[in-house]
Amino acid sequence: MLTIALIGSGNLGTQLFSLWKKHPSVQISQWVNRSTNQSIIAGVNCIPCLSNLKPADAYILAVPDRSIPSVSAQLPPSGLAIHCSGSIPLTDLENNGSQAVLYPLQSFSKSQNINLSEIPLFLEVAEGVKPTVLQQIADSWSYKQYWIDSSQRQQLHLAAVFANNFTNQLYYMASQICQRNALPFEALLPLIQETAQKIQYLTPIQAQTGPAKRNDQEVLEKQQSLLADANEKKIYQLLSQAILNQEDE
Amino acid sequence: MLTIALIGSGNLGTQLFSLWKKHPSVQISQWVNRSTNQSIIAGVNCIPCLSNLKPADAYILAVPDRSIPSVSAQLPPSGLAIHCSGSIPLTDLENNGSQAVLYPLQSFSKSQNINLSEIPLFLEVAEGVKPTVLQQIADSWSYKQYWIDSSQRQQLHLAAVFANNFTNQLYYMASQICQRNALPFEALLPLIQETAQKIQYLTPIQAQTGPAKRNDQEVLEKQQSLLADANEKKIYQLLSQAILNQEDE
Repeated sequence: MLTIALIGSGNLGTQLFSLWKKHPSVQISQWVNRSTNQSIIAGVNCIPCLSNLKPADAYILAVPDRSIPSVSAQLPPSGLAIHCSGSIPLTDLENNGSQAVLYPLQSFSKSQNINLSEIPLFLEVAEGVKPTVLQQIADSWSYKQYWIDSSQRQQLHLAAVFANNFTNQLYYMASQICQRNALPFEALLPLIQETAQKIQYLTPIQAQTGPAKRNDQEVLEKQQSLLADANEKKIYQLLSQAILNQEDE
Repeated sequence: MLTIALIGSGNLGTQLFSLWKKHPSVQISQWVNRSTNQSIIAGVNCIPCLSNLKPADAYILAVPDRSIPSVSAQLPPSGLAIHCSGSIPLTDLENNGSQAVLYPLQSFSKSQNINLSEIPLFLEVAEGVKPTVLQQIADSWSYKQYWIDSSQRQQLHLAAVFANNFTNQLYYMASQICQRNALPFEALLPLIQETAQKIQYLTPIQAQTGPAKRNDQEVLEKQQSLLADANEKKIYQLLSQAILNQEDE
């Protein structure tokens, strides 16, 4: 049985606690949790800060990106430190033991029940470190595993910003257009779902439709004139142009 | 029983034919279908052009936007002409009878089986025209109905371009980043689905996450430097700035 010290009680920390609190192959030895006064939760020893941390086989840093160097620097001298960030390189871990990364590619919200085992998990281990412990922890977490290096992980995180944050921002802009024109945003929800659904079995190029794809200049010009907001207009122009350029490829 | 002449055999025309070919309250009197040599399909008389069109209670123009004026000008002098376009005003219909619009807000692909009855349908009828016939046709089509005018419909179509075409273009950009870095695009699919899922019960502002939402300038700068493509970089800057501005509201 591997022992894991879990550090952090945000969205990911809370989800991982649920996953591992009663697990056949890993055991949470301590949970560094600043948001509770309880000393034991579900049989697990909770501590408010790192000073009482005992050695474990691995330390999972479910903490904000900026805290990764300082938290890792305070870890006991042996054991594997694992951060869970998309944008931070493995070398930002400053513990004396060994280093690894487990990055779950999803946008976590505390209120949601997510099945962690279905979320793609990206693995990296420092040069010269045996992957055995990391692999065992990954196996207890997700069945969708990919090995990538720090530079690939940064690019992956960037791709996720486009697919998730920016997409959500377009939903926001659509909702603003609806609001300004007394239109029901909820009527767009089936279309939003179908757009995400299509991409599960078509490539984005195959799935594309609309005025830019048809090179319908009349509609493109008309629609730009309907946008009073300068930022929305620029985004309309850039994304339409990107679709038009794609046709030329 | 209402008689409908269905004009067009593209994606929407084909879907509407399936819906109405055996319907208890509407009957397709003729199907103007240039893409078949058959004179009868499922008991319905097929004709290749408008010259043989007989009078009907309504004419459904499931044709490209640019053909709406010319096709409607050739309709018999009585009956209700209905176009199905998001971006064309009702007044572009040039028939001598009455005019209306039924706009289904979805992106149709021929290969897909879509349940038309669940797709939001936007209704408009010309001033002075009784809505009875249009309402009866709408009832045979979808149970999600909204009355809007031509100017609202243009704005709705614009909102749909953001929520559908532009979103799909962001999926494309994410897929390009993956391709350039030997990353599996399929690993982004659960995130894409969750992003569309979240918006079904959260507002876009509530659902937002990521470096711009957190105002994480370090990651924002780092990610921009990872983008070599100038257009991608501009889109990154504009959409990040839009998310940052939103925080100030």
